[in-house]
Amino acid sequence: METSWTSVAWELLLPAVRAPRRQRRRLLESALRDAIRAGHVAAGTRLPASRALADDLGVSRGLVTAVYDQLRAEGYVEGRPGAGTYAAPGLAVPAPPGGAPAGPTAAGAARVDFRPGQADPRLFPRAAWAGLYRQVLTGAPDRALSYGDPRGVPELRAALADLLARRRGVVTDPDRIVVCGGVAQAFSLVSRALAAAGHDTVAVEDPGPPELAMLARTNGLRPVPVDVGAHGPDLTGVPARAALVTPAHQFPTGIAYPPATRAALVRWASTVDGLLIEDDYDGDFRYDRAPVGALQGLGPDRVAYAGSVSKSLASGLRLGWLALPDRLTDPVVDLKRADDLCGPVLEQRTLAAFLTTGRYDAHLRRCQRTYRARRDVLVAAVRRYLPAARITGIAAGLHAVLVLPGGDEAALTAAAEAAGVRVLPLRHYGSGPSPGFVVGYAHLTPDTITNTVATLAVAWR
Amino acid sequence: METSWTSVAWELLLPAVRAPRRQRRRLLESALRDAIRAGHVAAGTRLPASRALADDLGVSRGLVTAVYDQLRAEGYVEGRPGAGTYAAPGLAVPAPPGGAPAGPTAAGAARVDFRPGQADPRLFPRAAWAGLYRQVLTGAPDRALSYGDPRGVPELRAALADLLARRRGVVTDPDRIVVCGGVAQAFSLVSRALAAAGHDTVAVEDPGPPELAMLARTNGLRPVPVDVGAHGPDLTGVPARAALVTPAHQFPTGIAYPPATRAALVRWASTVDGLLIEDDYDGDFRYDRAPVGALQGLGPDRVAYAGSVSKSLASGLRLGWLALPDRLTDPVVDLKRADDLCGPVLEQRTLAAFLTTGRYDAHLRRCQRTYRARRDVLVAAVRRYLPAARITGIAAGLHAVLVLPGGDEAALTAAAEAAGVRVLPLRHYGSGPSPGFVVGYAHLTPDTITNTVATLAVAWR
Repeated sequence: METSWTSVAWELLLPAVRAPRRQRRRLLESALRDAIRAGHVAAGTRLPASRALADDLGVSRGLVTAVYDQLRAEGYVEGRPGAGTYAAPGLAVPAPPGGAPAGPTAAGAARVDFRPGQADPRLFPRAAWAGLYRQVLTGAPDRALSYGDPRGVPELRAALADLLARRRGVVTDPDRIVVCGGVAQAFSLVSRALAAAGHDTVAVEDPGPPELAMLARTNGLRPVPVDVGAHGPDLTGVPARAALVTPAHQFPTGIAYPPATRAALVRWASTVDGLLIEDDYDGDFRYDRAPVGALQGLGPDRVAYAGSVSKSLASGLRLGWLALPDRLTDPVVDLKRADDLCGPVLEQRTLAAFLTTGRYDAHLRRCQRTYRARRDVLVAAVRRYLPAARITGIAAGLHAVLVLPGGDEAALTAAAEAAGVRVLPLRHYGSGPSPGFVVGYAHLTPDTITNTVATLAVAWR
Repeated sequence: METSWTSVAWELLLPAVRAPRRQRRRLLESALRDAIRAGHVAAGTRLPASRALADDLGVSRGLVTAVYDQLRAEGYVEGRPGAGTYAAPGLAVPAPPGGAPAGPTAAGAARVDFRPGQADPRLFPRAAWAGLYRQVLTGAPDRALSYGDPRGVPELRAALADLLARRRGVVTDPDRIVVCGGVAQAFSLVSRALAAAGHDTVAVEDPGPPELAMLARTNGLRPVPVDVGAHGPDLTGVPARAALVTPAHQFPTGIAYPPATRAALVRWASTVDGLLIEDDYDGDFRYDRAPVGALQGLGPDRVAYAGSVSKSLASGLRLGWLALPDRLTDPVVDLKRADDLCGPVLEQRTLAAFLTTGRYDAHLRRCQRTYRARRDVLVAAVRRYLPAARITGIAAGLHAVLVLPGGDEAALTAAAEAAGVRVLPLRHYGSGPSPGFVVGYAHLTPDTITNTVATLAVAWR
């Protein structure tokens, strides 16, 4: 049950320990209480030893002991120090009575894609975007239609520097930002720059997206998988001086790296004179607490920060960016120029206008509300129809991880498929608990989410 | 004077030799007569020996002898067989009397960029393009906003296959087309594919754009410059199995490769089991005769054809394409995927709509008319204000080559600059006659062209 604890708890507890010292105990108690009450920490889950939790959170052991004592007194946890601390049974919101309703199980039923990776294209603000595009095209000077700066149009880089500082705590300036064809091109360029600088390998998270390993490999770096474990990767001794990481919401497990891991990563990068490539792929969508800031803020000299509009607007726009350490900026700009001279200028200007007019912030708020509601529907549906399953990685992003109590993964996948639901096993991304599935819910309506979970419950019965 | 002959004459004579056999003599006579009368072949220029011209044009020596005889009879050429044939003096349209008018020579006068490479951004159909973009965005299915095919959106590839077959004689199909971020990305991808297949070098034209050499170098191939000479490069014995060529309108000399060179290039590629990369960078703008078809049509298996909208619409759109031989298609698609997954989908769809609704053809006709008129203004202005200069490479494209009878190139460049005109010496692109300048006229209005040439005449007096 360790996974259940860690996948959920870091996301819930971290904001508490980042609060001012005098509020920490109260917030930590409250967060742990909520997690148990909401079922995020299932009954019977063994909580970490107080010393281990204190180390991971970067707080004193006394604070954790006090919190455990208080919750034991309140009946949320059981056990004694030294003998283990467990979430008490009977506290989580009970599943509703009654089985799953009839779902769309008939052959030929409309397929539902329950795999991760998609934002909801229906949220893309088509009219506003087309209107801005027209304005940009009408108002742009003639020279703006010609080749642009290989780093991207200046207006966009200025707007991004502001956005990233404000929303993600990124420490940068417009001259160190390079606009790319999505995070994919950001990775290709950085990989090539590293290869040119003598790197042979890059550490990648396991589990993690196979696309990243493919991108690294084709661009001159051998990927070295490193276990994400419960607290993010430990890079000590790994045969690489660069690492691709997703600290805000690891893909696919959904964990957020604890502060100790974040600090250790930046220390590692300094020690080996290396680089972290931070994929902040859905740092914008954090539902229960304030977002964890970008890792880049901890070590702007050691982190190449990558982001895009693929999850917030549309992946088909292929608009992404890098915020680079000084020493990497010129090499990456040269590679960008040697790749395609520069990116398309009109949609870059449209995005700049979208940012500077405040539309992007408003759009993100709308997406955040919508996706959080869908996340809640998913959690409720799983609790109702698949009460034995654990659902984790739900504090942020567009997907969650569903771990079933047992069964053959291939058979479960086939049964889902036969019932009209396409699911993706967690092990598609490497190692992880089995049977486990990475569930993309953000592109589905609440009704579809509920019906799909109900359908799976029938198919998996 | 060999250069003067060859730069001009191939472009004027080629259509004649591609005509049905029974019309060739008449057309060849007429083309040569026009060239001399219009001053494209200056008085005193030595014409090639009949055997050499026959070989190069791929016609019988008897035909050339007959043409020379006829023109000698008419007084257009002088000399006797065996003793050389020369364009007769006094036939070209005479320069007008009087010196150059006062040009904008004062310091601080508005600068004119007389360098090559730009289309006229004022011709970009902003309203039509924005309207189509909106239509595309309004009508596209949700899934169209997501990642696309790495080869480009199918609608665009289908429309391009049709366009390229129709206008340029390219033999391809939508599955072998890859939409790229301009011709630059097309070159990067093909260069990387060649490097991965074991190529070390690529032949590049000398003179030629230094950007191409930079792209080759950064993407794993050492560029080997090959003299363009009078008839295009001879690749025999060159230490490379791939070559970047601009057969329709060599950049910067403006020559069109004669048929013998075209055939020899394709033969060479077969012999060395190699590849030609054809940059059809302004194959669409040919003013005096029907366009020469793409080289790719002669050897679809040996030519990677590259084109873009950079000269026809706007370079800032970064929309280009490759039509690839079968064996290269998968490797290039894999590299495109490993570079940026796919290109931006909305502007690809907009271009597809622009093509299929006939707007692109109409737009090209409009550009062609406009640029031809500007070309004529340039030629007239040069003849009037710089009568001793030769102007070549004028049968197509957006630039011409201006060769002066003498003077120091650096001093002439500085004098032009001081007079408010930025010019680019031909030798920027490698070897070539000196003092020579590559003149970009297509982005300038007729009045500006005339005034600029007049200004140069004063500055260079």
